[in-house]
Amino acid sequence: MKRHFDDELKKLNDKLYKMGLLVEEAVRNASDALFQRDSKKAHGVIKGDQEINLYEIEVDELSHELMALFQPAAGDLRLVTMALKITNDLERMGDQAVNIAERAIILNEREPLKPYQDLPKMSEIVRQMVRDALGAFIERDPVKAQAILEQDDTIDDLNDKIYDDVQKVLESRPQDIRIGLSLIMVSHNLERIADLATNIAEDVIYLKRGIDVRHHIRERRQQEG
Amino acid sequence: MKRHFDDELKKLNDKLYKMGLLVEEAVRNASDALFQRDSKKAHGVIKGDQEINLYEIEVDELSHELMALFQPAAGDLRLVTMALKITNDLERMGDQAVNIAERAIILNEREPLKPYQDLPKMSEIVRQMVRDALGAFIERDPVKAQAILEQDDTIDDLNDKIYDDVQKVLESRPQDIRIGLSLIMVSHNLERIADLATNIAEDVIYLKRGIDVRHHIRERRQQEG
Repeated sequence: MKRHFDDELKKLNDKLYKMGLLVEEAVRNASDALFQRDSKKAHGVIKGDQEINLYEIEVDELSHELMALFQPAAGDLRLVTMALKITNDLERMGDQAVNIAERAIILNEREPLKPYQDLPKMSEIVRQMVRDALGAFIERDPVKAQAILEQDDTIDDLNDKIYDDVQKVLESRPQDIRIGLSLIMVSHNLERIADLATNIAEDVIYLKRGIDVRHHIRERRQQEG
Repeated sequence: MKRHFDDELKKLNDKLYKMGLLVEEAVRNASDALFQRDSKKAHGVIKGDQEINLYEIEVDELSHELMALFQPAAGDLRLVTMALKITNDLERMGDQAVNIAERAIILNEREPLKPYQDLPKMSEIVRQMVRDALGAFIERDPVKAQAILEQDDTIDDLNDKIYDDVQKVLESRPQDIRIGLSLIMVSHNLERIADLATNIAEDVIYLKRGIDVRHHIRERRQQEG
């Protein structure tokens, strides 16, 4: 029975990982659609979001099946409920990628505005955070998870910088207000994706701590008994 | 045993409801801090977020205890995992209220900008959505949940309108760019809270359908068996 649970858990993790790769790809394509002024790519992201949504339903169903069938306890149960949470976070990242893609389509019809420069860097860090967050969950690696929390500070700083830069440009170029606002929203979307990756990382750290705490209690009980 | 599960589930729902009231209050106070130019209220929201975060941990723990102890199946299991999801959504709403409060503190030091007018209306609808979403979950009422989805469209329209209004004002008053951007961000925060309430409503609809589907399959199996 125990063996079987581990197999099913592996299946669940594999599905989550594939979903994560799709999300990371969506973020990359949405960003590229903007940076390379390629609206076709943007439409691909919008269309592809349906597949991400389907993955969420599958992970959700599989998690509930697992809980109902194996009735896992303590740390195992946390692993399954965390999968539920992560699939939800990934789905929301997908939505943010769609938001970026939609902005890209509008922005690609206008002249580029100067404070673009920090966005590609921001997008790259954010995508790495998504990959690392999934890796940290699957390897249950709190050290990797901790590094993501630090990356999140970098993203917040970049987001603030883009916000300030756009404001400065717009003060002398009020005619570009719509482009400027769109860039700020893209930066904001990327920052939200980073937040969601950070949520996953925090859960991994909590998971490790949670299991440790339970182990500790269990050991104490065994000693007392 | 069954009786006991229902008692614990009630306890879980009560805790969620109390958390929801705190969140709704945070959104109201953050909005009032802006509309009444009362930064003291804004600081209260920022400080009060810790209590909301503690509620999330409590609901999370209680849900896991419930699952480990009673090993609920099908619809009962969904009710518990949904509580996990809702507490997460409520915590995120709390974060959005903090964002509004932080903006309010900055905005209160400047002259008010004209497109304020739609924000109080938006805030009121959003708060009603939060209350209704919780009510729909606790009463498992898909009709109430459906009404929230329609409200969400109203909020999206208001958000677009505020965005357009601010853009128009800023085109002739570029010196107010910082105030204008902050207003857009507040509108965006309110729209995010509405989205999170809508998530809860969608889950309630899915819960009802999910249970129905399972019942249907079970009945068919019984007939076939």
